[in-house]
This record gives sequence, structure tokens and C-alpha cells, in this order.
Amino acid sequence: MIKKSIAIDMDGVIADVEQQFLNWYHRDYGVLFTKEYLTGKQEANAFPEEGAARKFAFTPGFFLTLPVMDGAVEAVKKLMETYEVYIVSAAMEFPLSLPEKLEWLKLNFPFIHWRNVIFCGDKSIINTDFMIDDHLKNLDNFKGKPIMFHAFHNVSYNHHVRANNWDEVLAILSDTNFTN
Amino acid sequence: MIKKSIAIDMDGVIADVEQQFLNWYHRDYGVLFTKEYLTGKQEANAFPEEGAARKFAFTPGFFLTLPVMDGAVEAVKKLMETYEVYIVSAAMEFPLSLPEKLEWLKLNFPFIHWRNVIFCGDKSIINTDFMIDDHLKNLDNFKGKPIMFHAFHNVSYNHHVRANNWDEVLAILSDTNFTN
Repeated sequence: MIKKSIAIDMDGVIADVEQQFLNWYHRDYGVLFTKEYLTGKQEANAFPEEGAARKFAFTPGFFLTLPVMDGAVEAVKKLMETYEVYIVSAAMEFPLSLPEKLEWLKLNFPFIHWRNVIFCGDKSIINTDFMIDDHLKNLDNFKGKPIMFHAFHNVSYNHHVRANNWDEVLAILSDTNFTN
Repeated sequence: MIKKSIAIDMDGVIADVEQQFLNWYHRDYGVLFTKEYLTGKQEANAFPEEGAARKFAFTPGFFLTLPVMDGAVEAVKKLMETYEVYIVSAAMEFPLSLPEKLEWLKLNFPFIHWRNVIFCGDKSIINTDFMIDDHLKNLDNFKGKPIMFHAFHNVSYNHHVRANNWDEVLAILSDTNFTN
């Protein structure tokens, strides 16, 4: 039987970009914000210092040192037993991040083969059965079944099935009412 | 009306990897082979010096300095009038090539937006209407209509529509018997 396929996003889904933003903002601007502070904001205006998040994303080392999202390693391993798992990252805006992202995957998810990694500008041509992502722009036009992973910038949207964490992703994908 | 979409490969299709292999082999091993010499060979055993092609592909600068395939720039521009064009390169095996490939596109195809660029390990989840590629592994499982671009390693295969050059690609994609 052919396994069903899942496209799993990197930033904000298996990599904790939010936490890295908070850590780097603290390091560079001396103010320690919390995840609660970011809730409901968009990346562009996430911090008092305008453009800080974007500047971080263009800094060498940012993507290589991202913390792993809680529970992601075990959950992805688990999903790979049942599904063909692809890591799909919209990373073209940050060219220098590409080798860092591959290296990060090798370090933190060494069980994912490079054949199953996709970097794209826009996810509209990605054809999998499921997609786990935090961005509406990726989920809204997806032809399969989307799962919206919680992020500070998507809290006010509720038109996709939401997973607040990796335990909830596993629960959703174990529910045949959703998967069939 | 929504434009139909095309996934266009880089190496061997818009970038003349064959010519670069020949040039670099000449430079490093002092022997100048021709494209005719390569015909029918596979990359792994293309040259007397075993592994030379693979070594080149891992050398910084290789992908950045690839010659543009004859007629590719004008043909891709022309196709973009009618189609949504995506550049799709199976580049994950060569992590350091990724920023070089993006830079190469910016230099040689500046009219292609980064949103329309995809780097992947395996093209099986690419969902476009057409695919122009030189590798059977990409064409054979494609769900849309494939066009096989001539390359030294695919001359003995004839189960896909073949384009020997970019003029022939344009002719095939102007033929409504093929496109409809």
C-alpha cells in the first residue's frame, strides 16, 4: 500500500523560530519578551525595534541554531512509521539560509533523507495528502488536508484544523474521521 | 483564466552542465572531449577519470558559473507569457550548490521571481501541468505531461516526448494536440 504523504513546514513547526526571535532580541536589545507578548502580532511588527525579526533572519547562524520545537523529533519519527514525510520550507527569500537549514535537519532530524526535503518560494505546487504549517498563505490554497500549527501570528484565524503542539498533531492524524 | 503550470529543470535543461563538465575536465585533466563523446554515457562513468563529474559538482563555483543552455532565456521568457513557470531543481544532494543556484538564476534569469523556484530532493510531490526535465527518474512518475529534454544520458530512452533543444520545447508546447 502506498503511504499517504505529509508536507511538514520547518520554521514555527519543527523549528522554534519564535523562541529564537525572543532570545536574539534579548541578546541584542536587552529586553526579554515572552511568547505571550508576541501573541497576535505579525513578524514584521513583532518587536518595538522595527525590522528586528527580519534582520535576524538574514543573519548567518540564525537558522542553523534554531531550537527544536517541543516534541517535534519524536512526533515526526512516529509519523514516518505511517506516512511518507516531506519537510517543505518556503526558504527562497533567504538564500543563505538554505545550506543552514539542510545542516540543521541533518543535526536535529538525521533520520530524514535529503530526498524528502523541499525548499520553495511558494508552496502552491506541493502535492501531498496533508500539510502541517503555521502560515495561512500556505494552508489556504493547499489541495490536500491542512493542519494549522499554532503560532503567535495565526491565533485569530480558525478556518483550519488547529494543532497547538505536536501531541495534538499526532492526535489529529490518528483520527480516521480526519484522515479518511 | 488560471495559467497552466510548467516545472522546468535547471541542470541539463536551462543550464548547460554537459559543457561545464567538458570545460572543467579539459582544465583539470588536459583532455578535451566533445558532447558526442559523452553521448550514451551516465554521469558516474562519463570520463576516464572516475568520479570526476561528481567531484566537479561538489566544487564551489561549479553551479554559479554554468553556461546558459542555448535558447533557454528567450524560450523561458516566451513560455512565461502563457504559463506559470516554476524552476524546479533536485539539488539537495549538493547543499552548497543551493545559494549558487539561486544566484545563477538571478544573474541569468532575473525575470524569474524567487517565489517560483523550488529545490527538492525528489520531484515526486511536484504538481504542475507540464514538466521539462532530462532525467527519467523525474519524468517517469510525474502526474502531468512530461517533456524529456535531450541529454547525453537519456539518448536511448524514447517513452517520453523528446525535445532536442529549446526551439523544439516551444514547438511542443504550441501544439494543442499535446497541451490539451
